Amino acid sequence: MTLEEARALDATDALAPLRDRFVLPPGVLYLDGNSLGALPRAAAEAVATATTQQWGERLIRSWNEGWMDAPRRVGGKIARLIGAEQDEVIVGDSTSANLFKLLVAALRADPARRVILSEAGNFPTDLHIAEGAIGCVPGASLKVVARGDVQGALGPDTAVLLLTHTHYKSAERWDMDALTRAAHAAGALVLWDLSHSAGAIPVNLGGAGADLAVGCGYKFLNGGPGAPAFLYVARRWQDRLASPLSGWMGHAEPFAFVDAYRPAPGMTRWLAGTPAVLGMAALEAGIDVWADVDLAQLWAKSAQLFDILHAAGAAVGLECVSPIAPNARGSHISFRHPHAYALCQALIAKGLIGDFRDPDIIRFGLTPLYLSHQDVWRAGDLLREAVATEAWSDPAYQVRAAVT
Amino acid sequence: MTLEEARALDATDALAPLRDRFVLPPGVLYLDGNSLGALPRAAAEAVATATTQQWGERLIRSWNEGWMDAPRRVGGKIARLIGAEQDEVIVGDSTSANLFKLLVAALRADPARRVILSEAGNFPTDLHIAEGAIGCVPGASLKVVARGDVQGALGPDTAVLLLTHTHYKSAERWDMDALTRAAHAAGALVLWDLSHSAGAIPVNLGGAGADLAVGCGYKFLNGGPGAPAFLYVARRWQDRLASPLSGWMGHAEPFAFVDAYRPAPGMTRWLAGTPAVLGMAALEAGIDVWADVDLAQLWAKSAQLFDILHAAGAAVGLECVSPIAPNARGSHISFRHPHAYALCQALIAKGLIGDFRDPDIIRFGLTPLYLSHQDVWRAGDLLREAVATEAWSDPAYQVRAAVT
Repeated sequence: MTLEEARALDATDALAPLRDRFVLPPGVLYLDGNSLGALPRAAAEAVATATTQQWGERLIRSWNEGWMDAPRRVGGKIARLIGAEQDEVIVGDSTSANLFKLLVAALRADPARRVILSEAGNFPTDLHIAEGAIGCVPGASLKVVARGDVQGALGPDTAVLLLTHTHYKSAERWDMDALTRAAHAAGALVLWDLSHSAGAIPVNLGGAGADLAVGCGYKFLNGGPGAPAFLYVARRWQDRLASPLSGWMGHAEPFAFVDAYRPAPGMTRWLAGTPAVLGMAALEAGIDVWADVDLAQLWAKSAQLFDILHAAGAAVGLECVSPIAPNARGSHISFRHPHAYALCQALIAKGLIGDFRDPDIIRFGLTPLYLSHQDVWRAGDLLREAVATEAWSDPAYQVRAAVT
Repeated sequence: MTLEEARALDATDALAPLRDRFVLPPGVLYLDGNSLGALPRAAAEAVATATTQQWGERLIRSWNEGWMDAPRRVGGKIARLIGAEQDEVIVGDSTSANLFKLLVAALRADPARRVILSEAGNFPTDLHIAEGAIGCVPGASLKVVARGDVQGALGPDTAVLLLTHTHYKSAERWDMDALTRAAHAAGALVLWDLSHSAGAIPVNLGGAGADLAVGCGYKFLNGGPGAPAFLYVARRWQDRLASPLSGWMGHAEPFAFVDAYRPAPGMTRWLAGTPAVLGMAALEAGIDVWADVDLAQLWAKSAQLFDILHAAGAAVGLECVSPIAPNARGSHISFRHPHAYALCQALIAKGLIGDFRDPDIIRFGLTPLYLSHQDVWRAGDLLREAVATEAWSDPAYQVRAAVT
C-alpha cells in the first residue's frame, strides 16, 4: 500500500472524526493503546469536574449526586460493547481483584468440581490470581495446559475454564462460542478475560452464552491509567454466586451499618470498598466516546490497519506472530525479533511508540478511534527503515528499564 | 466559650495558615472531613497534571516516570503519620480489599490458630470482610464480642485481633499499646484499622509493636473520594506473610511474564492489579500537606475544637456519646438524638455539614488543618439553635436518601 492509498482510505473513514475527541501529543505515532489508551478530551474535563466541583464544592453531598451509582451506571454503558445486558456489568476494583472474586465464587458453585483450567502463557495476573483463588477453596487446583490442549482438558472435575479472549502477546483470539459450548458440554463455567478484547473487537457474551467475564478499563476503552475494571455475571448466575471480597459496598444495606454481611441483589454484591471516584470519572468519559461507534466499522478498520502494518513488516522479513485471519485475532499485531527490546527503543526514539514483551516480541496496538490509515502507514515506514538499518544495534537502545 | 475567645485562639494557632491550602466552598461549615476530607488545592493541580500531561502527553512512558513507584512512594510518606518505617507501608486497592489480604494472611500464619476476634459494632466492612476471609481458610471462624469483652476473649485459638482504633460512630479509641500487648500475650497478631485515626490523632504502630494495619485515604488524609487505601506490615512479618490476592503487580518480576506466582520482597507483594494512578495523584498531594504538620499541635487543636462543640451540645442538653477524655477518643464528636437524621438535614440546610449514622447519631468531624476555632464555634451556634428551635420537626428534613 502507498501513502496515497492510505490517504484515500482515510478520506472515506466514517470513524475519522472521532480522532478529534482525543489528545495526542505532536510528533508521536501512538501504537500502544492496547496497553494504555489515549486521553479522551472529555475525560480531562470529567476528571477536572469531579475534582474541583464534585469533590471541592459539593464535598460529601456528591455521593448522592452521582458517585454512589457510578459503578452500575458505567457498567451499564460498557454492556453494549461486550454483548451484555446493562444489569449484568458493574465497574470497580482491578481486573486482578475481579478475577479473584469470580474464580473463588465459581469454585464454590459445585463442590464436585475443583479445577480451574487455563492456558500456559495466559496473561500472568490471570494465572497468578488463579493460584491465589485455589488457595481459598479446599481441594481446589489449577490445571494449566498448552493452548492446543485446553479443549481436551475439560472434564468432570473442571469448575471453571479461565481464558483470555484475545492473547496479550500474540493477539490470538479464542472462538468464544465454541469454547463456551465446550465448557458447558463438560459441565463447567467459563470466565472470559476481555482485557484485550473490549473496545478492540465486537464481543457478544450473551450470544455465546458466557457465564462470567472481567476486563480492564485502561486499554482499548481509554479509561485512564489504572482505571477501575469491569466484571460481568450472566443473569442466571447472579443470585447463586457471591463475592469472597464481601465489603460494605456489596452489602444489601450498606448504610444500615449492621454486623452481618448480606449480599446485595444483582451486580452490586460484586463491589467491595468505596468506589474510586476520580478513576471512575475518567473511565465514564472514555466509555461515552463509544456511544457513537459502530463496532462493525471499528473492526473493519482494525483489519485494514493490521494489513498495512503487516505488509510493512513482511517487506523486511519480520516474523508476524499474530493470526492473519481477522476473525482469529484481536486488534494488535506482534512481530518476533531477536533484538525486540532494542528495536522497540529505537522506534520510540523515532516517535513510534509500541511496546516490548519478553523475550522477543514487539507489539503494536491498532486503535481505530484515534489512528488513521496514514498514521499506521507512517508507523510501518518507520518500522521498515529501523529494521533495514539495524537500528537496534545502537547500544543506547539496549539498556533495559522497567517497562509495562 | 465566646466567639471572641475562639478568635483569640485562632490568632495564635500555628496550624491556621494551612487552611489556605484547601478549597472550601463559601457559606459552608464543613464538619464531615472524617467522611470525605476537603480538597487540597495541590490535589486539584496534581490530578490535572496526571491527566493532561502524564496521561495525555507522556502516555505509556509515564509508568517509568513515577507511576510505577507511586504505591511505595506514597506509602512511605504516610509512614510518619502512623509511626511506621517507610518500607512498612504501601498504598493500593481499598481498605476492604486490604483487610481481606491481611486477614487471610494472618489466619494462615499459625495453623493452630483459626479465630479472628473482633468487636460487635465495629465498622461494618471490617466484620463483613472478616466473614469473607474466614470462608477462605479451612476451619477459620469469626468471634465478635462486645467492646468490654474483647480483651478477655483473646485465647490460644486467636489468630488475629481485628480492631478499629478509633470507632467510626462514637470516636472511642482503643489503647493501642495495651491491646497490642494483650494480643501478643495471647500469642495472637493484631490488625489495626486506622481509617478514623490516620491524620486524626498521633498514631505509633512501631511504638506499640503492632503487627498489621490498614486505613483509608479519603478521610482525614484528604486523598479524595475513593482514594487508594494503605496497608502496613511490620518488618518482622514481611517475609512470612503473603497476599491471597496474588496479582501481577505483587510479583517479584511482573514484567518477566512468567506463569508461576512468586511474591515480591518487602511490601510490594501486597499490590494486586495496576495502581489507580489518578486517585494516587490526588492522595499524594493530600499527604504532602502533612509534611509540614506537627502532629502534637494537630492533636492539641483537635481537643480544643472538641471542647467548643461539646459545650454547645451540652448547652441544649444533647447527649454526647464520645469520650470526654482526649486520649480516649479520635477527632470527631458524636451526639445521640432521637431525630438525628432530620436534625442533620436541618443543619445541612443551614450550611453546617455533619453526618448521620443509623439509628440516632449525628456526627461532626474535627479537622484542624482546615477548620478554625471560629468555624467550630459557629457550628456549635447553629447546632444549639437547631436543637432549641426543634428544627428537626420540619417534615422536609425527614425524607431519607442514601447517605454515607
